[in-house]
Amino acid sequence: MTLETRASEGREVAATDTRFSINQATIKHASLPDAVRTVADAGLASIGLWREPVAEFGLAASARLVRESGLRVSSLCRGGFFTVPEGPARRAAIDENRRAIEETATLGAPALVLVAGGLPEGSRDLAGARARVGDALAELVDDALAAGVTLAIEPLHPMYVADRAVVSTLGQALDLAEPFPAEAVGVVVDTFHVFWDPAVEQQIARAGAAGRIASYQVCDWNLPIAADPLLSRGYPGDGHVDFERITRAVAAAGYEGDVEVEIFNQQVWDTDPAAAVRITVERYRELVHPFL
Amino acid sequence: MTLETRASEGREVAATDTRFSINQATIKHASLPDAVRTVADAGLASIGLWREPVAEFGLAASARLVRESGLRVSSLCRGGFFTVPEGPARRAAIDENRRAIEETATLGAPALVLVAGGLPEGSRDLAGARARVGDALAELVDDALAAGVTLAIEPLHPMYVADRAVVSTLGQALDLAEPFPAEAVGVVVDTFHVFWDPAVEQQIARAGAAGRIASYQVCDWNLPIAADPLLSRGYPGDGHVDFERITRAVAAAGYEGDVEVEIFNQQVWDTDPAAAVRITVERYRELVHPFL
Repeated sequence: MTLETRASEGREVAATDTRFSINQATIKHASLPDAVRTVADAGLASIGLWREPVAEFGLAASARLVRESGLRVSSLCRGGFFTVPEGPARRAAIDENRRAIEETATLGAPALVLVAGGLPEGSRDLAGARARVGDALAELVDDALAAGVTLAIEPLHPMYVADRAVVSTLGQALDLAEPFPAEAVGVVVDTFHVFWDPAVEQQIARAGAAGRIASYQVCDWNLPIAADPLLSRGYPGDGHVDFERITRAVAAAGYEGDVEVEIFNQQVWDTDPAAAVRITVERYRELVHPFL
Repeated sequence: MTLETRASEGREVAATDTRFSINQATIKHASLPDAVRTVADAGLASIGLWREPVAEFGLAASARLVRESGLRVSSLCRGGFFTVPEGPARRAAIDENRRAIEETATLGAPALVLVAGGLPEGSRDLAGARARVGDALAELVDDALAAGVTLAIEPLHPMYVADRAVVSTLGQALDLAEPFPAEAVGVVVDTFHVFWDPAVEQQIARAGAAGRIASYQVCDWNLPIAADPLLSRGYPGDGHVDFERITRAVAAAGYEGDVEVEIFNQQVWDTDPAAAVRITVERYRELVHPFL
């Protein structure tokens, strides 16, 4: 394995891992400093952060901590949740997203991941909720441009359509992004959420051609579906996703950014963070990196 | 409520209910004779049957029983499960489907519902499995034509893609059906499985224009997802499906066949069959029939 030197620190990073990022949700029981240290000690180049632990540690302190670690921040999770109709709740959601954009810029992350939100309480109007996602993007696009941050719309698996994300396919996310400049609005390709889609390769190619792949996230689709369906994500190789097929499509589409592993899984969370990162790196090297 | 007379029996059927069918899975703990009697006693016109209880009661006896009840058989569940590669298991699956086609004809049902099957054990090759669904249809289409039975491909919600059905969208089901005559290969529109799809109305219109809507099934998408995700189906009105939107689309597409309610749900199964049918009829009258 060839090695290269990371300029900021002089530490060595395996060349396979220069685009590899651990999303801190994968080791969610580690504090922010512990997560940063664990990822840096594993010789990785990048980390994906979440707003809540950043807020807890302090935004400026978090930005300094990560900068001094030599890690890049691949993305910030997350904004969105703006499917409610006009009113105080919607205004609060838009304001919250403006703050999230600022935080993303402060952390030096290229992308803010957006989870659209589900159907408003008691509503069955998917078309209306989906239209309001587009309206929210229109309100936020100037802030994103000014901050140099890409709003990364994450289509979620259709099993979350009612309660978490009315954006269910990559094609739909791209339709929502299309009216806006590619540097301001892109999409997340998350294997767990899109692997089932018969159009996934075609839509990845479309996203690449439009310069809109803002993040590539890899994790597996485990069965049985966990009692809390959010926790069905697994280490690459433990489930049913064909990482070669999707990774080749993402590479062929010209994506050159970081590749994030984000796993919500009780068993992974119960593992020592350093061990969980080690397993994740092994799986990435075997199942993802060869096809990038 | 206007009433009309059912010719075969002289019993009265409410005009709202002349296209309404209870799939026997909704009252799965009733024996076949009990299920037929319960549905007929509720004044309904049609019942959807399953192969296993029909086999248990005897095919000829089942056909006679239903005929004498005055009910139509709206569909037979189910064929399919033919995603395995060539070999003895695939041959057995094709043979089984041939038997199912014959049974459908014997029962006088217009459609045999097909659930494609998931990924073969250890495989992650969705494209290959999907192609083999097309191959199976090509093998079965002459039998279907000869028997006067429509093979009704049922796209299943993408949460079942790995373990039950690699056909995940209506668009994909229509792509699979397209090479074959519409009288031989159609699709099932099941609200639970397709309501999330941003393209659902467009694909229902496409299905109708091609004369390929072989069955319309209504049931709700309940949350939380049940521990056994197959049992997340609910009475119309209990979950998040917009029945008006989808029913209007199905009606506008020209569908004039039976409307089946098929609910897999432990609580519904624990209800007295006659009571479960009564609730189902009420929900159908309120939430589905007005938009047909």
